Amino acid sequence: MSLSDSEWFTEAYENRTAFSVRYSRKLFDQVSGFQRIEIFETEPMGRVLVLDGCFMLTDKDHFVYHEMIAHPAMAVLPNPRKALVIGGGDGGVVTELVKYPQLESVTLCEIDPLVVSACREYFPAISAGLADPRVRVINEDGAAYIAQFEREFDLVIVDSTDPVGPGTVLFEVPFYQAVRKSLTSDGAAVFQTESPLFMEANFLLAVGNLTRAFGAGQVRPYLATIPCYPGGLWSFSFCSERRDPIREAPDTVDRGLLERLSYYNAEIHRGAFALPLFVQRLIGRAV
Amino acid sequence: MSLSDSEWFTEAYENRTAFSVRYSRKLFDQVSGFQRIEIFETEPMGRVLVLDGCFMLTDKDHFVYHEMIAHPAMAVLPNPRKALVIGGGDGGVVTELVKYPQLESVTLCEIDPLVVSACREYFPAISAGLADPRVRVINEDGAAYIAQFEREFDLVIVDSTDPVGPGTVLFEVPFYQAVRKSLTSDGAAVFQTESPLFMEANFLLAVGNLTRAFGAGQVRPYLATIPCYPGGLWSFSFCSERRDPIREAPDTVDRGLLERLSYYNAEIHRGAFALPLFVQRLIGRAV
Repeated sequence: MSLSDSEWFTEAYENRTAFSVRYSRKLFDQVSGFQRIEIFETEPMGRVLVLDGCFMLTDKDHFVYHEMIAHPAMAVLPNPRKALVIGGGDGGVVTELVKYPQLESVTLCEIDPLVVSACREYFPAISAGLADPRVRVINEDGAAYIAQFEREFDLVIVDSTDPVGPGTVLFEVPFYQAVRKSLTSDGAAVFQTESPLFMEANFLLAVGNLTRAFGAGQVRPYLATIPCYPGGLWSFSFCSERRDPIREAPDTVDRGLLERLSYYNAEIHRGAFALPLFVQRLIGRAV
Repeated sequence: MSLSDSEWFTEAYENRTAFSVRYSRKLFDQVSGFQRIEIFETEPMGRVLVLDGCFMLTDKDHFVYHEMIAHPAMAVLPNPRKALVIGGGDGGVVTELVKYPQLESVTLCEIDPLVVSACREYFPAISAGLADPRVRVINEDGAAYIAQFEREFDLVIVDSTDPVGPGTVLFEVPFYQAVRKSLTSDGAAVFQTESPLFMEANFLLAVGNLTRAFGAGQVRPYLATIPCYPGGLWSFSFCSERRDPIREAPDTVDRGLLERLSYYNAEIHRGAFALPLFVQRLIGRAV
């Protein structure tokens, strides 16, 4: 069957595979200085954020991405007080982080202010954390911003787009080295590192460059399923000089926190770092 | 963008979301007494098998499904000798099972002989196990076939389609009870139980009815990502009177077997049974 453009939003990844959602209304369509931003109202996935034609998040499945980029690292950091999020202008990562009272400051560095304002308006629940008094939003280039810090952040989360156009720099060694330098001695960084199944080259690029910046054995990829992303199987990478997310995996997660989550728990923490053989073999080629 | 039918095969799940693959050629298109069978040649996912408009398998991602429906149970059965596969006419499950020398007989009960012959021709690697001398292929209705057995099989794997049309019976309590009765006292059965994210009702139906048939605490759902299926996040359920796939999870997997696999390993075994909170909560509603 063919899908009409007036009823379906389709992202065709590399013109090879495609994921589509039927929408009822387009709520937002503007071009910022950085990208085209579209927001659709859909019945199956709730509201859908699209940047330059690519799915960024949906009401339906964003919790997998946002919980899995934020909570594994928070669970193993001994005393996290200062966090920085690069990208992630939708506020979803920040909303997860402000669930931790021990965080004293959360900085969001999103280059495009229009993403932030559109998401505040159309994704009020996802962006709710941006209103927390500990949060500061900065609209700067993330790579330039982080370069000024040394031993500053206990946690840096890089919620980037794919390595195309302006996002490319966020997958390169100098940026990864700057992130490493910005971390406290006990700190950790987490990066979205693409799909090891549908984006083998991107995954290899990210894990290879992270290993060059952080050192062998200090990059721990882990997985979750994000249905609206190409391939569904998505990777994140936990990087730290001192912390080990597997050896230091939590036995339990605070019950009050669990009540506010939909995906992450202690078993998922361990399970996410269990890598399929084909991913282990890919990583062997990356490093 | 809209996708032309002459270049793309699209499965629109409930006319709400869709997954599409661009194809270069249609290799096969026949209607059997049971269903329409199509096979496409594609660049991104290799050959693709479609039954009644639904993705069944692709060269690219079938290993996830076939390894994960077969190996977790084989790893915890103490002395499996006789196995039965219901559905699975592509031969993929059988091809995984014949990797175990200790299996003395593997019966495939697939209702539609045209699926088997088409897959033997167009998916020679996936269906290779069908040529093993221990394998017998029977073209009968799986629900009728299994009803004649008592304490016969150490392992039953139900590789069914969705619970629509003729496949509905394979999600009902009488069938599940017949599977239970057909198992040896130490045996186990594994069922594909749909997507807990995009097919909540189907997942609840399957897990609820399995629990009615096998008893509370004897149904253990587990997860893997199958990109060509709606939602990507897919569930299987392990059911057994005596065996516990979590408590009895293997510490290691035979090296010779691992060399022939692309997904499953001991860490994945444990990780797959780690369920996200939303799945745990769904199961709580099912039983």
